[in-house]
Amino acid sequence: MKPKRQAAPSGAGNNSIPVCADPKPPASEDRVLELLKRRFGRRSAGLVLGMGDDAAVIRTRAGEDWVITTDMLLEGVDFREGWLTPAQLGHKALAVNLSDLAAMGARPRFYLVALGVPPSTAESWIVSFYRGMSALGERHRAVLLGGDLSRSAGGAQVTVTAIGVARRGRLLRRSGGKPGDWLYVTGVLGRSAAGLRLLLSRRLRGSTPREREALRTHKMPLPRCAAGQWLAASGLVRAMMDLSDGLSADLPRLCRASGTGAELHADRIPLFEAARHWGASPLDLALNGGEDFELLFAVPERAVEELRRTYPRRFPPIAAIGRLTRGSDIMVRSHAGARPRKLSAGGFDHFRTGINPP
Amino acid sequence: MKPKRQAAPSGAGNNSIPVCADPKPPASEDRVLELLKRRFGRRSAGLVLGMGDDAAVIRTRAGEDWVITTDMLLEGVDFREGWLTPAQLGHKALAVNLSDLAAMGARPRFYLVALGVPPSTAESWIVSFYRGMSALGERHRAVLLGGDLSRSAGGAQVTVTAIGVARRGRLLRRSGGKPGDWLYVTGVLGRSAAGLRLLLSRRLRGSTPREREALRTHKMPLPRCAAGQWLAASGLVRAMMDLSDGLSADLPRLCRASGTGAELHADRIPLFEAARHWGASPLDLALNGGEDFELLFAVPERAVEELRRTYPRRFPPIAAIGRLTRGSDIMVRSHAGARPRKLSAGGFDHFRTGINPP
Repeated sequence: MKPKRQAAPSGAGNNSIPVCADPKPPASEDRVLELLKRRFGRRSAGLVLGMGDDAAVIRTRAGEDWVITTDMLLEGVDFREGWLTPAQLGHKALAVNLSDLAAMGARPRFYLVALGVPPSTAESWIVSFYRGMSALGERHRAVLLGGDLSRSAGGAQVTVTAIGVARRGRLLRRSGGKPGDWLYVTGVLGRSAAGLRLLLSRRLRGSTPREREALRTHKMPLPRCAAGQWLAASGLVRAMMDLSDGLSADLPRLCRASGTGAELHADRIPLFEAARHWGASPLDLALNGGEDFELLFAVPERAVEELRRTYPRRFPPIAAIGRLTRGSDIMVRSHAGARPRKLSAGGFDHFRTGINPP
Repeated sequence: MKPKRQAAPSGAGNNSIPVCADPKPPASEDRVLELLKRRFGRRSAGLVLGMGDDAAVIRTRAGEDWVITTDMLLEGVDFREGWLTPAQLGHKALAVNLSDLAAMGARPRFYLVALGVPPSTAESWIVSFYRGMSALGERHRAVLLGGDLSRSAGGAQVTVTAIGVARRGRLLRRSGGKPGDWLYVTGVLGRSAAGLRLLLSRRLRGSTPREREALRTHKMPLPRCAAGQWLAASGLVRAMMDLSDGLSADLPRLCRASGTGAELHADRIPLFEAARHWGASPLDLALNGGEDFELLFAVPERAVEELRRTYPRRFPPIAAIGRLTRGSDIMVRSHAGARPRKLSAGGFDHFRTGINPP
């Protein structure tokens, strides 16, 4: 990200909340997207699922569902100059899109990329960007279809569109959860946000293995495609999404789509404990930090035992972190027996204002 | 485009040449894309056509070809603050993508949009943007699938991905032309560039019907979807593309793909003559101005008569402007009998440096 840096506000997650309804207070992205969906969402032959989930779904005539998603990464908003090498930027721009495919259990097939770079950008920068992107693409057998290349007036900006497929009826949405279902996550939550804190405090490289791990997670997230496909095919899962904005922002989305509330057990959330050593609260990072790109999914009680028995060990570990409930409240208990309190939507404000340096 | 204007270089066409190979002289987008295609292009089951044409083509199992393209519009590069209303920006961002579908003869089906706007942008701006976009979408029966919304650190930026379909084997590529084929275009060339000149000289509204026509063409281009589909289905056309960067930039692309040269007859090109009154050369605008979004196509001699007889009158008029030739030279004759001279690639430099105000 060499040229023409902008003194832009920092933030993370391309689901940052960019919009304010003037003269009303800033609107959330959720609210604007809901409005757009209501006003411009259309039904159409072949369209199984339109706006509002992790990706859209088109049914082809051959018994396949096609899953399509688009996400952008913008310098000065999602990352700052010097944070990512071009190869890491290429990797990350594709990863956030593959994660949307993983969230529905789709198998990645194709992707397109629109890249804007300052006019002074070297050709080698562009080649490295594509190398990083296509290395991740090849790992997931996703093929680059082409795209657009332009100079930009500001910093680098990337929009990727990713296309995946699934057998008809095999995809998981956010909306299938039911009260009583167990809530599971893959991997560890808050590690990416821990990496972001390091970047914001100008520790760009990391001096311990844990610091490097956090930075790696933030810079080169690994989309959970294999786990997502397995979970969707297993028949044991009722609803799924990926965690891009932190549990406190994303869990309410799954609950709203499913028409449920939820109760989280804070002591069961797999945290990135090392962040404690550099002055952060691991629980706060897990709840309010974004870009983990782990999967959040709902499993009916009767399927829990089979899931535990059959979930492949080669995939990232899964943990039950709470349950869906009746009503619409999102509650959190610090530990079993503790009094539940309302989960504040930290993720929202957090992304509205950007992460403050520690 | 209200907030945070950037004093950015002007230019037009999202195929502007953004990249320079440091320390070598500025690279052209064509060169970089060729390099990327060579290094990162992959074959894959179901992939009929990858990088390098107007759009990529995927073959589904049901005898349909899916056509996918992505293009961006960036404030400060493709347009300046105050030039376009949000509704016009929405229209144009979709139009440039539908034009890529038209270029192959595909029927528009779906689109996705990634929109970045400054944090101070009003909700009403976003709604107007979507209204303009979906009005054009509905005219072409293309359905909005969803997308991404983010704040941007600079001005507004839009990336649209459009998806179309065609019956198997019905699509037209750039590569089918043969020496002797007649070159045709739809509509009038240079009108959009004439409108851009008005904008650059701060005549944002136009005081005569012709000025308003030029501005309208530049701000709200009409993709030639119906004509493109008809031409592809007619069996009378061997190669096709859309004119986004001016004849002098785009014709060489069709020729390179087809392995031919070409000879243009300047006096047969349908020009926007009114531009003469405001100090521009209509021929220069047609050759070197971009964003006409008309179709350029090659018709074998034996099909010319049938094309003339059967091409529907409700579509934009077509004109034969030259022929494909053996070799690789692109020549232009001012009129029949005149000495042919080499067509200089004005479109390239033109877009590399931006259009200079008249």
